[in-house]
Amino acid sequence: MADINSIAKQFTDFYYQTFDTNRAALQSLYRANSMLTFEGSQFAGVAGITEKLTSLPFEQVQHKVTTLDAQPSSTTGESSLIVSVTGLLVVDGSQNPLQFSQIFQLIPDSGSYYVFNDIFRLNYG
Amino acid sequence: MADINSIAKQFTDFYYQTFDTNRAALQSLYRANSMLTFEGSQFAGVAGITEKLTSLPFEQVQHKVTTLDAQPSSTTGESSLIVSVTGLLVVDGSQNPLQFSQIFQLIPDSGSYYVFNDIFRLNYG
Repeated sequence: MADINSIAKQFTDFYYQTFDTNRAALQSLYRANSMLTFEGSQFAGVAGITEKLTSLPFEQVQHKVTTLDAQPSSTTGESSLIVSVTGLLVVDGSQNPLQFSQIFQLIPDSGSYYVFNDIFRLNYG
Repeated sequence: MADINSIAKQFTDFYYQTFDTNRAALQSLYRANSMLTFEGSQFAGVAGITEKLTSLPFEQVQHKVTTLDAQPSSTTGESSLIVSVTGLLVVDGSQNPLQFSQIFQLIPDSGSYYVFNDIFRLNYG
């Protein structure tokens, strides 16, 4: 599954770099049928998801990926994949990073991938 | 998505209760095409996954679910779902529970579901 892992790495590198520098640009990764569950609240579609992501109440944010796992997600041989991330979120320069878990399902689309499923949770100890 | 959430709750209640009392019985939840990524190591199929789960080196274990999220995982209307869990793992009565993240993709099969994708990670602070 080397290929899956390298797709997952490329995607998460791009996703978190974009999130941390230009959140509005994340909209290119979602489609009309995309779903986001953010801390238990549900959002759908490009506009709904982008509005949520861009309105999160912090100025500066940095994601540091700790673990990254990927598996093929289709039982019928499509090249979709599930990506599971755990990591640390440094918000507005805080000395206390927050632990997070995030999962994506990526669906192939015109030579690239879009995010169909996105579930984000902070992990409180 | 009330129905999805209730399926996710029923599944995780059963999964963790079985894990904590009779791990070998988890084999009924996997199929020949199932995948498990456990702390970065990959296992596949009923026998491979069951052998890993039953050989984990602890006597007593208790999962406590903190958050549970679910989304439909099929772009074509199948009733498969992604379940994302965060929680605490109490191993051999330790005073220091370990934080974990686990995701499943459940695929419908003969009126029930089986686990196609399973990714487990401990989260170190």
